[in-house]
Amino acid sequence: MIRHTVAFKLRHEAGSAAEKDFLSKGAELAAIPGVTKFEITRQVSAKNPYSFGISMEFADQAAYDGYNNHPDHVAFVRDRWLVEVEDFLEADFAAL
Amino acid sequence: MIRHTVAFKLRHEAGSAAEKDFLSKGAELAAIPGVTKFEITRQVSAKNPYSFGISMEFADQAAYDGYNNHPDHVAFVRDRWLVEVEDFLEADFAAL
Repeated sequence: MIRHTVAFKLRHEAGSAAEKDFLSKGAELAAIPGVTKFEITRQVSAKNPYSFGISMEFADQAAYDGYNNHPDHVAFVRDRWLVEVEDFLEADFAAL
Repeated sequence: MIRHTVAFKLRHEAGSAAEKDFLSKGAELAAIPGVTKFEITRQVSAKNPYSFGISMEFADQAAYDGYNNHPDHVAFVRDRWLVEVEDFLEADFAAL
């Protein structure tokens, strides 16, 4: 199992319609084959600059690769993520 | 629910006895009251500088505070974390 996580901050104003639309569109990534335990959450610690988190799990690297290369993911990154995200950090976790 | 996460990198050499001992001692934090879904994992993305992750969940802020102030946590931070951890990032996640 690999847990893929991204903490991020949007260019949009907190509580704005643009923020809501981004989060709603991001939630559609859950439908890509291989994605399990998909969550979008609020990042609530003051010890980092991020406002939100996305977390999902893949059974193995092949499933993760399938997600990364899926046209819906590629389009989301190109059309929304690179445009609307101000800062982010990816981290992936697997069993010790 | 609040998910408390820390990604971190140790001063120890990868695979060393000192690394193993730190991870073993860290795993004892799971016994502190209020801690649920405790995990220590390997951080496997090349997109950040961290080698490991700790994740746990608390029912609410009171449980989180109880963990933070628990003498076993305070002692671990003082005696091990501040001495053996080279770099880390905390992030906490709650429902949108």
